[in-house]
Amino acid sequence: MADILFERIALIGIGLIGSSIARDIKELGLAREVVVSTRSEETLKRAEELELGTSYTASVADAVREADLVIVSVPVGASEDVAKQIAPHLKAGAIVTDVGSTKASVIAQMAPHMPQHVHFIPGHPLAGTEKSGPDAGFAGLFRDRWCIFTPLPGTDAAALDRLKGFWLALGSRVDEMDPEHHDKVLAIVSHLPHIIAYNIVGTADDLSTVTESEVIKYSASGFRDFTRLAASDPTMWRDICLHNKDAILEMLARFSEDLAYLQRAIRWGEGDKLFELFTRTRAVRRSIIQAGQDVDAPDFGRHSLDQKK
Amino acid sequence: MADILFERIALIGIGLIGSSIARDIKELGLAREVVVSTRSEETLKRAEELELGTSYTASVADAVREADLVIVSVPVGASEDVAKQIAPHLKAGAIVTDVGSTKASVIAQMAPHMPQHVHFIPGHPLAGTEKSGPDAGFAGLFRDRWCIFTPLPGTDAAALDRLKGFWLALGSRVDEMDPEHHDKVLAIVSHLPHIIAYNIVGTADDLSTVTESEVIKYSASGFRDFTRLAASDPTMWRDICLHNKDAILEMLARFSEDLAYLQRAIRWGEGDKLFELFTRTRAVRRSIIQAGQDVDAPDFGRHSLDQKK
Repeated sequence: MADILFERIALIGIGLIGSSIARDIKELGLAREVVVSTRSEETLKRAEELELGTSYTASVADAVREADLVIVSVPVGASEDVAKQIAPHLKAGAIVTDVGSTKASVIAQMAPHMPQHVHFIPGHPLAGTEKSGPDAGFAGLFRDRWCIFTPLPGTDAAALDRLKGFWLALGSRVDEMDPEHHDKVLAIVSHLPHIIAYNIVGTADDLSTVTESEVIKYSASGFRDFTRLAASDPTMWRDICLHNKDAILEMLARFSEDLAYLQRAIRWGEGDKLFELFTRTRAVRRSIIQAGQDVDAPDFGRHSLDQKK
Repeated sequence: MADILFERIALIGIGLIGSSIARDIKELGLAREVVVSTRSEETLKRAEELELGTSYTASVADAVREADLVIVSVPVGASEDVAKQIAPHLKAGAIVTDVGSTKASVIAQMAPHMPQHVHFIPGHPLAGTEKSGPDAGFAGLFRDRWCIFTPLPGTDAAALDRLKGFWLALGSRVDEMDPEHHDKVLAIVSHLPHIIAYNIVGTADDLSTVTESEVIKYSASGFRDFTRLAASDPTMWRDICLHNKDAILEMLARFSEDLAYLQRAIRWGEGDKLFELFTRTRAVRRSIIQAGQDVDAPDFGRHSLDQKK
């Protein structure tokens, strides 16, 4: 059992991320009180059934009133609304953070509303699965995952350290960057892959020459690898697209240029160009394995799937 | 131990697929003799060290001379060369098959050279991993995987049944379609996903605003899922691109159109269009899980990776 790090933590939003944080806090004993707040009556009820906090309220004002740490875990498009609602009720000295996948937009939405007497420190734990909702969360989701902070100029060092300490207690590795750089990095490592995955699954779904049942039946040949990403929460991803627009459009433009080059090489039978690219990308995979970011087991260890049949 | 299905099987090419077939034949005792043949001296030596066959020869002519079943497992671009070399030496009544990922091209390359007295039956086991070479193969690779046959008009029904029986013995599920339809189906379920994966990894690798070490470090956020496909054998994939050109270009055109639509929706902030697509693709994922083509464990059960750290 770790030390109690905060007397009272308010969790605004209790989906996959919020509920995983709740489970970790409980398991590790990091807070005396955990107030869970969410707009949806149904979700709030479910959070209570799951015993994710010590109290539950639909009023975010009530939730944050005595909280030392407020963690906002809502789709990024809802950040400004939440900021406006909580601002007048925040306790002096409280730390307010978020878990949003885009940072410049969240800062633009929240910072103007934050009172001088609180520490607003934007954060982004790079963790998640394709599932959503309070039932999808689990303790340990953040273990060995990166949590990136994008502190504003003049952020209180002690408050930042305290917040980092919380995420370290959850098992995360912590990192700092400026918000614009964060948004570019995430655009390539996360946003573009998700958009491409959504797109390819959509393309396949539209084909009339190949039936959907054939796509499903033979999906293990490569298509399947995209469907996990394309099953992610639609609200969350709509908001990411709308709130990291510039970086995403830049990455999409680069991707499309590269694809046009590849398409042309296929059309004109330029085997050397294809071979050169296909060889170069292999090295990237090796680096990821070496960095411990994926397992080297072929086919992602899905043999278990095949062998159980 | 199953029955002996063929007296003598010749395996032309002994990479991931050929060597997995060899291991299955041995483990199941499906043939009395297995002749392994490949162009590369080094690979042939390795096949012998691994005891994949009962004899080894660099001469494909020698390999096929007394064989009842000849399985050609080479990159599809090498099919015509192999066909020319084996044709004069094939035994009357022999079954000649292949494992190529494109079928119209393989038929165009091989069929004209096949003598009247053999049964040429093109096939394609939908199995594999991102690894290549004789060491990458393993027994059981084809278990519960589809093997699609694209028999030519007038194919001897008994020979086709015999060949199907062989793949059934390896645990495969068997299917039949015409070669053009096969090539379209594979273009969407396998070729397009691989090309897109190669492309996105290439795009990321080229970025100067985001360092490669950042791409690697944060790859678990989505990018990682593409790198397995993009680590596949470059020669094999170059050949697939060159030999299923028409179907691939059609799928690429559709994909790019759809992506332009999505890009425009992002640029103009059309959240409804994004939400609609992101919701629709979720259903495809559900169908794949229901069809038993993937495990429902979030994040592909890679928690094992995280938890071992």
